[in-house]
Amino acid sequence: MIQKIRAPLFEALIAHAQSKPASFHVPGHRYGHSLAQPLWSESDYNGRKEELAARSVESLAADWFLPLMQLDTTELTATDDLHHPETSILEAQQLAARCYGSDETFFLVGGSTSGNLAMLLSVCEPGELMIVQRNVHKSVINGLTLAGAKAVFVSPEIDELTGIPTVPSVQNIEYALEQYPEAKAVLLSNPNYYGMGVHLRAYADAAHRKSVPLLVDEAHGAHYGFHPELPSSAIQEGADGVVQSAHKTLHALTMGAWLHVKGSLLQRERLKEALAMIQSSSPSFPIMASLDISRAIVEERGNKLFEASIRSAEMFRQRIEQTCQVLRIVSFAPLPAMQIDPLRICLTDRSGQLNGYQLQAELERKGCWVEMADPRQVLLLFGLQVGEADVDRLAAACADIDRLLSANDDGIDLKADRKDGSWRLNGQVQEHSDSYRGVSAPVQFGRELRHLTYETVPIEEAEQRLAAEMITPYPPGIPLVYPGEPLTSHGIAAIQRLAQYGAKFQGASDPSMNTIRVYKR
Amino acid sequence: MIQKIRAPLFEALIAHAQSKPASFHVPGHRYGHSLAQPLWSESDYNGRKEELAARSVESLAADWFLPLMQLDTTELTATDDLHHPETSILEAQQLAARCYGSDETFFLVGGSTSGNLAMLLSVCEPGELMIVQRNVHKSVINGLTLAGAKAVFVSPEIDELTGIPTVPSVQNIEYALEQYPEAKAVLLSNPNYYGMGVHLRAYADAAHRKSVPLLVDEAHGAHYGFHPELPSSAIQEGADGVVQSAHKTLHALTMGAWLHVKGSLLQRERLKEALAMIQSSSPSFPIMASLDISRAIVEERGNKLFEASIRSAEMFRQRIEQTCQVLRIVSFAPLPAMQIDPLRICLTDRSGQLNGYQLQAELERKGCWVEMADPRQVLLLFGLQVGEADVDRLAAACADIDRLLSANDDGIDLKADRKDGSWRLNGQVQEHSDSYRGVSAPVQFGRELRHLTYETVPIEEAEQRLAAEMITPYPPGIPLVYPGEPLTSHGIAAIQRLAQYGAKFQGASDPSMNTIRVYKR
Repeated sequence: MIQKIRAPLFEALIAHAQSKPASFHVPGHRYGHSLAQPLWSESDYNGRKEELAARSVESLAADWFLPLMQLDTTELTATDDLHHPETSILEAQQLAARCYGSDETFFLVGGSTSGNLAMLLSVCEPGELMIVQRNVHKSVINGLTLAGAKAVFVSPEIDELTGIPTVPSVQNIEYALEQYPEAKAVLLSNPNYYGMGVHLRAYADAAHRKSVPLLVDEAHGAHYGFHPELPSSAIQEGADGVVQSAHKTLHALTMGAWLHVKGSLLQRERLKEALAMIQSSSPSFPIMASLDISRAIVEERGNKLFEASIRSAEMFRQRIEQTCQVLRIVSFAPLPAMQIDPLRICLTDRSGQLNGYQLQAELERKGCWVEMADPRQVLLLFGLQVGEADVDRLAAACADIDRLLSANDDGIDLKADRKDGSWRLNGQVQEHSDSYRGVSAPVQFGRELRHLTYETVPIEEAEQRLAAEMITPYPPGIPLVYPGEPLTSHGIAAIQRLAQYGAKFQGASDPSMNTIRVYKR
Repeated sequence: MIQKIRAPLFEALIAHAQSKPASFHVPGHRYGHSLAQPLWSESDYNGRKEELAARSVESLAADWFLPLMQLDTTELTATDDLHHPETSILEAQQLAARCYGSDETFFLVGGSTSGNLAMLLSVCEPGELMIVQRNVHKSVINGLTLAGAKAVFVSPEIDELTGIPTVPSVQNIEYALEQYPEAKAVLLSNPNYYGMGVHLRAYADAAHRKSVPLLVDEAHGAHYGFHPELPSSAIQEGADGVVQSAHKTLHALTMGAWLHVKGSLLQRERLKEALAMIQSSSPSFPIMASLDISRAIVEERGNKLFEASIRSAEMFRQRIEQTCQVLRIVSFAPLPAMQIDPLRICLTDRSGQLNGYQLQAELERKGCWVEMADPRQVLLLFGLQVGEADVDRLAAACADIDRLLSANDDGIDLKADRKDGSWRLNGQVQEHSDSYRGVSAPVQFGRELRHLTYETVPIEEAEQRLAAEMITPYPPGIPLVYPGEPLTSHGIAAIQRLAQYGAKFQGASDPSMNTIRVYKR
């Protein structure tokens, strides 16, 4: 039965929509009927045609929302229930598990954020200890806070050529596991925002030797393992719990993600409980259907699905190398067991005339929108079905920018130690704030910290104070400072530099970062 | 400036889409391009036209998803950032605040669930006390658990005619405020699932006399206050923090909700922090745009927006009374300060041949889908722009069912005290589990409870044991038993009766409810 079904949830929603159901339930738009025929009686309707023709908000909204609203339904006998799946959602999740090689896969409608929160809530009791990679997405820290867990942070390796943090060495993870036998789990974020990652097998083995689960935030790797030129996935490498953003690299709508579970080290019941706690009690069916579709397309197309974009990325690299004098593709130093996502490309101005944010702005002016910028470079993500026309457009935009930059090129290639470059800042922060072998002392998380009262001080006076807020330049959303963590001179310099370069600081009390909240002494 | 903008976020997304941007960022579907042209090179494309014609998953998905995918983007200079709003999202939220009469309104992409969780996390430190209406949505209990708060539960009033719990009396809330001066806030759920609610002014005054905020889960009331025949809204009545599901009764996509804040009793900074903790770091732009659209349409149409459905509901009531012998519109006993939502109608079989779940099934067979069923009745929600045709279809379905039922009608009208009716179960559970004046002793919530080990016992043997799981018949998703709460004979009887009637028990370890988890003695 399951074998024959291609997209059971999507198909169930279509079948229901095509049965022309009369909706006397939520959502209030009633499959978009409220936009399609915004006036209630025929006579009234005829009387108001002009107004409709005049592009009322309804009719404008109808153009964009109407088709999908026909799938935007609620928990019905015909549609199943994410928090208690019995029919189409259950089958869709089973097909996803089979496709990814997990034992069980849970659809997420709150993005990888909800998966990371739920994983942490399911593995730690308050006060219990986790071994956590330092450069994790803020949702992992939020999960530690909600769980009231203790974390031992392990510093990542730093790429020699760019200073970009990747993952901790397996030796340091093993060291942390030896030092903290009470640890409940190891959590890694792999690959990083730049598509840099490692084979995880040795990490999984290290965790399993201590009978703890390896949890992986693989938000950027939902496409891993489906093409010979793509890295292998965390599940393939033996991880126990893996969160992936299907919306980042597959066909899912934004916030569509999933959580894969393999083996018995994660308690499924607790995980379900945590997911029901964190996620909406009326989850979005269009997002769930888009997950079903994402999996179905991967199964239908196999590696063909990624061939186009991999070839296009390759083509773009060649074009830049052939046509540009100043713009350069950033390359990374080879590390043991490293795996690079060929669909993510970093572009930089070697002459230093444009920092990453300025280069981003130039590309945007030409209609080319990038995934992120940092002080040094922009990150380009080659999504699905990127074709020749897309490459032409991007390469042309780069060539234009390169022509202008070449005019003022001093010919100097930037050295790693450039004074005004902030590209080693992350690395410096990590190194400075960690102790022996990059393994920090345990840091207690929890909402209790808020009991301490805080004050706001100029950032240059904050050295050695305990931060009372999380400082997160976004993108990529990796916290430089955690609440309760002492502020170091390097950390402060990093924050000031990033603010100078125009990075956004989400949720900071002073987004300009001239001041910072610290706990009172 | 703001005055001239009708739907700033929606318009910003349209403008961006129409600028034909080249996407080198998430989401991977690239504004749906990956579905629109699923093969990468022209030659390849031409070579595969037949396959496309054969309705591949992509082309089927394109039919439903393509238009909206053009608005499904990410945080860009052109689109703003929900967690750090500066342009279109900021303006859209300001317009919503102006429209609802709040001081600040936050868009929610995780449903009212995310708003309830965030409100509780922002008002209670671990161990602090909340005064909470007992019959709240499970997201409120999950919020108490994540917050590690103490709750004093106040029993609701029970409708005389149906036994449906509404809200606590203002006297009992005042009593609880007197007994627990350390309380940090009062949280009410108003209206209930059936559209039964009260004027909240006296409750707001009672809370404000003690300088604590009144928080209201008004998930079912996003349309309140916009038509003379609709109840007044919690914000209009003086509440400090109000969560509404814009998807339930307005045009928003499912999971689209908002949180209104008025006055200074809620700490905005903490609220923002909690929202950023609970919600996705890549929130859905289509859902946010649908919130902007919902507000814009309410402003554009005013009370005309609800006229059609209010008239239709009235018409349907008359039809049932005129044409049906056995099916009856359920009426409620008038209570002081009561307000009823005219857009929610309860339908019951007075002959008792069909319980609520069976009546729901009969209506579904005729293509009429209801909001929920309980053992006694079905609940019909009249969403937006319900017209004559919809009423005809529903009334005809009811007439058919009524004809069959009339044949076997024993003519007896069900009395409130019917032995096999479960309509007073909720009420009994509430009364039994509360002490003097319906105010319970403080119950400590928190994840620590999980430290206690549990066992599974037959439910009939669980009396006086502490429940180790939350038992929630869904819909309406109001927990009958909270983890850590002693199980009473009435509570057990209620659970058994509801299971008999076919209610679903979300997340229960044994959905059949033959067994239940209790903490070991």
